[in-house]
Amino acid sequence: MTTLETRSLHQCFGGVQGFYQHPSEIIGLPMRFSVYQPPQAQYQRVPVVFFLAGLTCTEETFMIKAGAQRYAAEYGLMLVTMDTSPRQTGIPGETDDWDFGAGAGFYLDATQSPWSQYFRMESYITQELRQIIIDQFPADPNRIGIFGHSMGGHGALTLALRYPELFRSVSAFAPICAPMQCPWGQKAFRHYLGEDQSSWRQYDATALIADGRSISDLLIDQGLNDQFLTQQLYPEALEKSCREADQKLTLRFHSGYDHSYYFISTFIGEHLKYHREQLG
Amino acid sequence: MTTLETRSLHQCFGGVQGFYQHPSEIIGLPMRFSVYQPPQAQYQRVPVVFFLAGLTCTEETFMIKAGAQRYAAEYGLMLVTMDTSPRQTGIPGETDDWDFGAGAGFYLDATQSPWSQYFRMESYITQELRQIIIDQFPADPNRIGIFGHSMGGHGALTLALRYPELFRSVSAFAPICAPMQCPWGQKAFRHYLGEDQSSWRQYDATALIADGRSISDLLIDQGLNDQFLTQQLYPEALEKSCREADQKLTLRFHSGYDHSYYFISTFIGEHLKYHREQLG
Repeated sequence: MTTLETRSLHQCFGGVQGFYQHPSEIIGLPMRFSVYQPPQAQYQRVPVVFFLAGLTCTEETFMIKAGAQRYAAEYGLMLVTMDTSPRQTGIPGETDDWDFGAGAGFYLDATQSPWSQYFRMESYITQELRQIIIDQFPADPNRIGIFGHSMGGHGALTLALRYPELFRSVSAFAPICAPMQCPWGQKAFRHYLGEDQSSWRQYDATALIADGRSISDLLIDQGLNDQFLTQQLYPEALEKSCREADQKLTLRFHSGYDHSYYFISTFIGEHLKYHREQLG
Repeated sequence: MTTLETRSLHQCFGGVQGFYQHPSEIIGLPMRFSVYQPPQAQYQRVPVVFFLAGLTCTEETFMIKAGAQRYAAEYGLMLVTMDTSPRQTGIPGETDDWDFGAGAGFYLDATQSPWSQYFRMESYITQELRQIIIDQFPADPNRIGIFGHSMGGHGALTLALRYPELFRSVSAFAPICAPMQCPWGQKAFRHYLGEDQSSWRQYDATALIADGRSISDLLIDQGLNDQFLTQQLYPEALEKSCREADQKLTLRFHSGYDHSYYFISTFIGEHLKYHREQLG
């Protein structure tokens, strides 16, 4: 069992906000993650929701900015966040771009050198981190959901579609819905996965649904004042794919809201309520 | 009327989170502040609460970390935060210490050179910023409260005691209750105010109450796992001063909570409810 280094613990809404680091076998480097344990976790295993953050974020961002602990305490949900990529890999140029490399792992397993050695966020989350949460925290392994924001919304959608046995509920804030069609996704996929676009489809929620993958339900909130809406996010592509595939989808547009955590914090309570209901 | 530069606006819980900069006449340099306008402010003047942050913070910290907007929207309260000191004054050594100088203005008007030229946070808040809020935002000038954290808790207590006509409600999270007696306060007061300790009393809540100042009510929350509790905060000194002066005080200790915004966020809802009730 991997040994966790506890970086800090903070009491919060009667529960415990913890920040951890461990040597990751799958990544081959130290990885950081964070867990909020609600008060209910002191006497029983509780359902869990993984939150996947967006470009440039770390395992801290959501826990600091989203105001989620209040609702997690109310609903008895454990929250798990992780860093958005491996760090300090030594790969030349890893920090040159804010939308690729460090802070931009895109929640996939890279196949192209040099990224493939370390950039394996998909396996890290679905195998190693999930097992750590089950083994070392009072988590109910049969009630785990996933959600995320922007790049992390893409991650939540694609991981939920590909691993429905692992994640029983899914939602997203302003997700990258069709990364094969947008600049962020094309740049990342070209470097991480190579030029063969057939390998990209497994990491594109819109394509996955078109290809027959499905999930029981899906909630997405999107601000209409989001600076990335028309160039990067493409919710209309996902909506079309869902409609054609008969995939259930609740896609809500919100006038005036942008891409920030001020948007996320406004609707975080509804998302956690949704996950609590989905997870039973 | 001073011209505000709007740095950013974000919709949040149906209201607007704004960040602003302006040339401050009192400070003599650009100053930054932030305002959360609740939905109710779109059709009427609303009560206001000023939040004064702690050492190293900026006008952004509380708005990002406290989870306050949810409650401000519910209670119809405007929130105002400001930077914790002038910045880039050019004074030698202003950024050498995290607990003095930049980020550590202690909410007073310095009398000692070179600090006295710029470090005038007391006048900035009580005169210039207050007037901006009244003139340029839908604020009810007769219903303004003040609260803060740590150094900002000290600021809220001392400004409320000295300007009861300006601030009709006051509360604090883990305030520096007796700065004349603790290392943070002594260091700051010596540099900002000089060696004559009689000039320090007007900036020490415990001394102000002993000297006859009073406020209608006072709410303080303090974590018992606060790393600064015994060396810097001295709530027992304030409690003694209040008891001897018959000053009403609700001082609540909370097992397990530390000095962080995870503590503040847990109790922010109760503080805003308190201010809403006090402000009528």
